Amino acid sequence: MKVQGRPTRTIELHGDGRSVVVIDQTQLPARFETVRLSTCDEVAQAIARMVVRGAPLIGVAGAFGLAFALVARGSDGELAAGFDQLLAARPTAVNLRWALEHVRDGVRSLPPAERGAQAMKLAGQLAEADVATCRAMAAHGLPLIERAWEKKNRAGRVNVLTHCNAGWLATVDWGTALGPVFLAQERGIPVHVWVEETRPRNQGYLTAWELRQQGIAHTVIVDNAGGHVMQRGDVDLCLVGTDRTARNGDVCNKIGTYLKGLAAHDTGVPFYVAAPSSSIDFRLASGASIPIEERSEREVCFVGDVEVLAGSPVANPGFDVTPARYVTGLVTERGVCPASADGLRSLFPEAMA
Amino acid sequence: MKVQGRPTRTIELHGDGRSVVVIDQTQLPARFETVRLSTCDEVAQAIARMVVRGAPLIGVAGAFGLAFALVARGSDGELAAGFDQLLAARPTAVNLRWALEHVRDGVRSLPPAERGAQAMKLAGQLAEADVATCRAMAAHGLPLIERAWEKKNRAGRVNVLTHCNAGWLATVDWGTALGPVFLAQERGIPVHVWVEETRPRNQGYLTAWELRQQGIAHTVIVDNAGGHVMQRGDVDLCLVGTDRTARNGDVCNKIGTYLKGLAAHDTGVPFYVAAPSSSIDFRLASGASIPIEERSEREVCFVGDVEVLAGSPVANPGFDVTPARYVTGLVTERGVCPASADGLRSLFPEAMA
Repeated sequence: MKVQGRPTRTIELHGDGRSVVVIDQTQLPARFETVRLSTCDEVAQAIARMVVRGAPLIGVAGAFGLAFALVARGSDGELAAGFDQLLAARPTAVNLRWALEHVRDGVRSLPPAERGAQAMKLAGQLAEADVATCRAMAAHGLPLIERAWEKKNRAGRVNVLTHCNAGWLATVDWGTALGPVFLAQERGIPVHVWVEETRPRNQGYLTAWELRQQGIAHTVIVDNAGGHVMQRGDVDLCLVGTDRTARNGDVCNKIGTYLKGLAAHDTGVPFYVAAPSSSIDFRLASGASIPIEERSEREVCFVGDVEVLAGSPVANPGFDVTPARYVTGLVTERGVCPASADGLRSLFPEAMA
Repeated sequence: MKVQGRPTRTIELHGDGRSVVVIDQTQLPARFETVRLSTCDEVAQAIARMVVRGAPLIGVAGAFGLAFALVARGSDGELAAGFDQLLAARPTAVNLRWALEHVRDGVRSLPPAERGAQAMKLAGQLAEADVATCRAMAAHGLPLIERAWEKKNRAGRVNVLTHCNAGWLATVDWGTALGPVFLAQERGIPVHVWVEETRPRNQGYLTAWELRQQGIAHTVIVDNAGGHVMQRGDVDLCLVGTDRTARNGDVCNKIGTYLKGLAAHDTGVPFYVAAPSSSIDFRLASGASIPIEERSEREVCFVGDVEVLAGSPVANPGFDVTPARYVTGLVTERGVCPASADGLRSLFPEAMA
């Protein structure tokens, strides 16, 4: 998508063919800066520090990280150590595991000396596949916005509420939940996005920044206000992302998503989750056993370098689980389906076997 | 309650008998400072700027503000102008109107020269009555905590979740939602409070400060995390305040309360609202017509003096309405009742006639 009018991706192979350049998302929206990563350590750090973030993007970044480890030294030990180090960087999103397994399984049978080059190739393919997946999800999600627009007899604008950032910054390009919004804009549908700031890290600011760059109408609200705007009839549909979706359709996403699922259900607002298959944990029966990352107290107590809270204990769970019964549907790269085992089976029979 | 071990109230008559000293709540928790207010203008400003805040406290402060206007000049014009000015300072909480009407109706029939002294007397009585009301609510709410403690076979601790600040800082003393917690501590019940930070103004920090001063165990979380801690079974009951409660039991309180009512309902956690009769709008059929204050964008975009968000439009509704069906009960100064017209009629037959 565009940054100051120029098409940009969140992660791109550097000209040297042995490193990647990523947008430093800890600096946004204040500053647009890029960072070069060329070792497995650097990638693991970048994922843990959320220099790169968003389930799809950390999957692709992790794949490059493992490739860097193998380029340096392609032994079985290096493969296992790199895999474990990267997997530990963020525990909740399943895309990271998925991407690392894809690379590992694709190089394991090769001689050590050939693993690095093959891993780099696979990582590059994953990046391209992510773009194609997001583009397909956008196309499948577009009719949800078109239908909301028809339902209003094309009056006013379609109001979409989103939580956190599931835009192109969370992926290589296009985004998951925001993909249909970007497409709707291309088709001339007037869209307005309610952007929740998404404490404690305020990833909503990334969403606002994306929308500004694309010239899409939006309004930032505190997370507390999301239910109220639904109650007063100002939301036509909710579109959010997911870090891990279980076989039964339970959705684990950024902390606070569950509350919006409840409010959407209570107010009759459709609640859709953009879930690329890379974020679906086909081995997992339900959301109950997803590990919820507990992040640093500092994220809650500091805003930038300013300490806003001192002297009290803090808990900071990073994710919550929205039960499938509150999810109207899953938008995947193969189409939209109910958030259920039957729904997922209809689109991914091979994985749900 | 105690500040550094010393019993303190949020508003006290100054020795001169013509002004009040209030805690400047915009400075907490960083600094404990008091401010002297001696004119109607100063009180209206202090209410609008949230130097004093909390539905019960702004009622008492407003009463003193009107008294100051009448001490200066007791004419009908001054009475009407002071009333209107103070009422406009915050539109949502009904206590302000209730207190202003109480003073106005109590002095209207007097000669202008006698109105000031009588209004000062009435305002002082309202302050004392607020303390008695809160103390009675604490006593009526205590059994809710005791029952939760018995239900756990007195194992571990009772986990209470609260939103915003409905502690003693929101009243003259004792608080509304936190009153039962303070009493439970006196009775030796181990209580732990989940304190939601309550964006955009972070009044949860006031709650955390109160609990620290009283030595009560607590943990601060972002508003997004309140549903998750209920889902994982770590909340025994919710206790929140209210700015206006309708005849049918709908509760208007700080933005975000609705989302916690939904989560409590979904997870089977009792959800109680501490509602002194001064906050019940007995003329109002339901919560649908309560005016929702839209506050400044600055509250969302700035944290202290640091601008955290620039360039995007912002909406900042200050309150939302939790439908009565999600409220387990109302804790009033006359006892606990269902959040319904019948419930309120059982305790306040004269007002519900």
